[in-house]
Amino acid sequence: MYRTHTCGELRIENLGTEVTLSGWVQRIRDLGAMTFVDLRDRYGITQLVVDENTDKSVTEDLEKLGREFVIQAVGIVRERSSKNKNITTGDVEIALKSIQILSPSAVPPFTIQDDTDGGDDLRMKYRYLDLRRTAVRKNLELRAKMAHAIRNYLNTDGFIETETPVLIKSTPEGARDFVVPSRMNPGEFYALPQSPQMFKQLLMVAGFDKYYQIVKCFRDEDLRADRQPEFTQIDCEMSFVEQKDVLETFEGLTRYMFKEVLDIEVDEFPWMPYSEAMEKYGSDKPDTRFEMLINDISEIVKGKNFNVFDSAEYIGAICAKGCAEYTRKQLDGLTNWVKRPQIGAKGLVYVKCNADGTYKSSVDKFYSQEDLQQWAEATGAKAGDLILVMSGDKNHMLDALGALRLEMANQLGLRDKKVFKPLWVVDFPLLEWDEESQRFFAMHHPFTSPKPEDIPLLDTAPGKVRANAYDLVINGVEIGGGSVRIFNSELQSKMFDLLGFTKEQAETQFGFLMNAFKYGAPPHAGIAFGFDRLVSLFAGLDTIRDVIAFPKNNSGRDVMNDAPAAIAKEQLDELNLILNIKEK
Amino acid sequence: MYRTHTCGELRIENLGTEVTLSGWVQRIRDLGAMTFVDLRDRYGITQLVVDENTDKSVTEDLEKLGREFVIQAVGIVRERSSKNKNITTGDVEIALKSIQILSPSAVPPFTIQDDTDGGDDLRMKYRYLDLRRTAVRKNLELRAKMAHAIRNYLNTDGFIETETPVLIKSTPEGARDFVVPSRMNPGEFYALPQSPQMFKQLLMVAGFDKYYQIVKCFRDEDLRADRQPEFTQIDCEMSFVEQKDVLETFEGLTRYMFKEVLDIEVDEFPWMPYSEAMEKYGSDKPDTRFEMLINDISEIVKGKNFNVFDSAEYIGAICAKGCAEYTRKQLDGLTNWVKRPQIGAKGLVYVKCNADGTYKSSVDKFYSQEDLQQWAEATGAKAGDLILVMSGDKNHMLDALGALRLEMANQLGLRDKKVFKPLWVVDFPLLEWDEESQRFFAMHHPFTSPKPEDIPLLDTAPGKVRANAYDLVINGVEIGGGSVRIFNSELQSKMFDLLGFTKEQAETQFGFLMNAFKYGAPPHAGIAFGFDRLVSLFAGLDTIRDVIAFPKNNSGRDVMNDAPAAIAKEQLDELNLILNIKEK
Repeated sequence: MYRTHTCGELRIENLGTEVTLSGWVQRIRDLGAMTFVDLRDRYGITQLVVDENTDKSVTEDLEKLGREFVIQAVGIVRERSSKNKNITTGDVEIALKSIQILSPSAVPPFTIQDDTDGGDDLRMKYRYLDLRRTAVRKNLELRAKMAHAIRNYLNTDGFIETETPVLIKSTPEGARDFVVPSRMNPGEFYALPQSPQMFKQLLMVAGFDKYYQIVKCFRDEDLRADRQPEFTQIDCEMSFVEQKDVLETFEGLTRYMFKEVLDIEVDEFPWMPYSEAMEKYGSDKPDTRFEMLINDISEIVKGKNFNVFDSAEYIGAICAKGCAEYTRKQLDGLTNWVKRPQIGAKGLVYVKCNADGTYKSSVDKFYSQEDLQQWAEATGAKAGDLILVMSGDKNHMLDALGALRLEMANQLGLRDKKVFKPLWVVDFPLLEWDEESQRFFAMHHPFTSPKPEDIPLLDTAPGKVRANAYDLVINGVEIGGGSVRIFNSELQSKMFDLLGFTKEQAETQFGFLMNAFKYGAPPHAGIAFGFDRLVSLFAGLDTIRDVIAFPKNNSGRDVMNDAPAAIAKEQLDELNLILNIKEK
Repeated sequence: MYRTHTCGELRIENLGTEVTLSGWVQRIRDLGAMTFVDLRDRYGITQLVVDENTDKSVTEDLEKLGREFVIQAVGIVRERSSKNKNITTGDVEIALKSIQILSPSAVPPFTIQDDTDGGDDLRMKYRYLDLRRTAVRKNLELRAKMAHAIRNYLNTDGFIETETPVLIKSTPEGARDFVVPSRMNPGEFYALPQSPQMFKQLLMVAGFDKYYQIVKCFRDEDLRADRQPEFTQIDCEMSFVEQKDVLETFEGLTRYMFKEVLDIEVDEFPWMPYSEAMEKYGSDKPDTRFEMLINDISEIVKGKNFNVFDSAEYIGAICAKGCAEYTRKQLDGLTNWVKRPQIGAKGLVYVKCNADGTYKSSVDKFYSQEDLQQWAEATGAKAGDLILVMSGDKNHMLDALGALRLEMANQLGLRDKKVFKPLWVVDFPLLEWDEESQRFFAMHHPFTSPKPEDIPLLDTAPGKVRANAYDLVINGVEIGGGSVRIFNSELQSKMFDLLGFTKEQAETQFGFLMNAFKYGAPPHAGIAFGFDRLVSLFAGLDTIRDVIAFPKNNSGRDVMNDAPAAIAKEQLDELNLILNIKEK
């Protein structure tokens, strides 16, 4: 037996007991007369002590130890003279009788403690050591706890967790698939699922009624900051439901999670139409922890001979509370910030609402104090506030103002990670026009149902059709999204037409779903949550990488075990493949 | 709102209520004055009625219905005149006020009921219709229930469910990997995991202490009857444990599952050494629901001038209780059965233990009644029993007798699917010698620890070294297996040597695990259960295919959606691949 107790278990009640502990050497302090060893495992840290009463052989063994050695220690629990309130075992220590080295350790490449000296790359290469750090492990423990809470909630609500295949058929719609050559079917490939979309709809056709799955999904995308080639989704689908049923169910789940995991009661989730989110927040994932809404001031600022505004499609403004005292340097900084290529604005107009009721703006040449007063009224600015204005193409400026709004909130500390403001964004457009390919794309996916009242527009103004689609947004992060599905083959065919599929393409790609719909498809709707993002949000982290045990880097590499890697020629031969690497 | 109640919900307490139900038309019975419609959903069946009091328009709507139409029905709950005790809603029926067709259905290719007329191929092609059958859906519901019970048990026991990557590095050891070309890393491939073996060991190095995961695994094997290219594993690993700790934990889990899911109390699991399983049952996965042990009778049958026995390495016998009356035809049948290529025995000797105490055998020419009496004593045969004897190469004959034992038990109805006899098979050989490649293979895997007392044999007689490896066997099915791991780099290097790896190969393939072991690896051990098999065993089914929502056929094809399939040339180009299909 390697241990009688864990390193987080012993208390004052255990005084006098002989115990055996196993764990990692966190720290050794040699104080001459006494030596202390902090022994660590997942459950905590226990202090081992050697003093003048300890057998000399133990002292000798102790000299062989180093950081991160795995040892087994036998000793008697006794009370500490100076208690440590920071750890749960801080009232006791172990007077050592013997120790045994189970595994020595080389000097680790960085220190295994909350404030480590290891850089990102080093910690990724030695991920198994980084995971020893309590802060990192806690994230993974949170993840496990959240997965279990989700399952408890959905199982209790009658959902059946059903595994769908990982080796599926490639579909060119959506992001790029990872593919898997089939040895048994030469020249053919499986794809890894970007989501189990079609399978969950088939389960509804099969009468499963309520389906969910916490499931790995895959996208072969050029990786941006917070993307991983494999990620985990809470994937759900329900039959005989309308949009509000889905939203109620998953609002229930989300509120349960906040309560169960973080002990936080969140308010009811508001529903915000997509158009409102774009107009007021400049984003389809508005951060509603703070106001600072975008105001369209086009009407009131035009016609004063300021050509920049007069020629602009749209002029929008936000009001930054209490920022009237921003210095020239700060304002220049903001101007440069919005001129960066990522934002791409031409410039930034400001109005300071001075404490004495006057206004000072960068366009004083064109606008009187009365004019600027109108701006203040339109943006709700009071004395002490700063109005920031941008002008140009409307969609572009909404994006830019949305970004500026977040930047100002960052500067003002309005984005508190301990505050959670969830909302539903609804009524998304059904279709997005792509200038390059001159065709419509499905904004959500090709199975999303239009709002019934907008169906006539499919023939006349497809771009204006709204979808029965919805996103759950929390603190400016899109946590999940879904839609009511089309369950009628005719409407689905019409959608495929609009998306520019030929009959053959639609048949090849989605034929089996269309066929399934011929045998009595129930009305159904669903949603998928990004589980990594949800955990990262709950953990107060900025990236999903920290809530994944073995993440990949931005080139899709696992730097710890050096994957992907070349494979043997025999493997390629068996798969009927030849490599065709282009010279650079 | 599509429904106020499900089709399994209404009871006598609901009499008089107006309800709205939605579901599939299971059956329409037109009795002239009255018409009955059975409406089905996942939760049950409710009878809808139209009679002389029903509005005529409803009767007309009814005429448009066919089997598997999805409808919404509104009506009043009333008491049935003739109750149906077979269904939970059998006391009531719905007097229809209106119906609406939500989705029509073409005539389904087979009937959606427990006894269907659909053949295997048809049901696989229309799997979404097959899944509508209650019997099939129940298997998937059982699967979900079992997964949840497993998670409850292991979470309560302090295990952390941790997701490990699906896109990993290919390792040539073990079965064939599925590989995934990396677009971002030209010429390189990920592999899909055959198991998360190395990652779970790294999690132990990381101090996770208790890990589990219910996880998809992948093997590109030529598919036999009960194999799938993707399958689900309950994967576990524990630190600071010995073999008995692991066995206790997972015996606990298994007993909990039997109790929780099937309400069955199973006995404590016996531990049987591999050698005993082979000698007495002719199998490393003995079916212990019945005795009929194999007896080595080599010593007592030799030396009677029967050349077949005298020249054989081994002569073994089983006693089939109550089979002394087997006819000539039955005995010939058994002889042909053992001569089939799958068994490959040369012949079968029998001894009938007659009711009068005499013996009748196929080798009466060589053996006296006294001789045969000895055989009976050695095999425990009594009057009325049949002794079956085979001779030849020992390992081959143990296999053959093991198979014959199962066949006789099938004939005698001794393999009751409602009886469960779990046991641990322990002390497996560490290594298997492969004649063809003239090298040792790891019987379990290269990280399995030898039994400490056998370590000296590694240098002198590696084939005799026993491993700290174990299998959970229930009713002749291997449900899971695992081992205590090597956690010492030196011993691990020695294992790689024995397995014929060069230093470079070992470094390339397992280097990152070996490196991890240098930084303080705890003693650890683990196990993995085949979840599909466990569910199939609990469901009393013969194949895992029936407990998988969307299984593949023996060529690894999903015949429903026709995967795998060709992919676009652009996809191949992006992946730097050229197809190289050989002409047949």
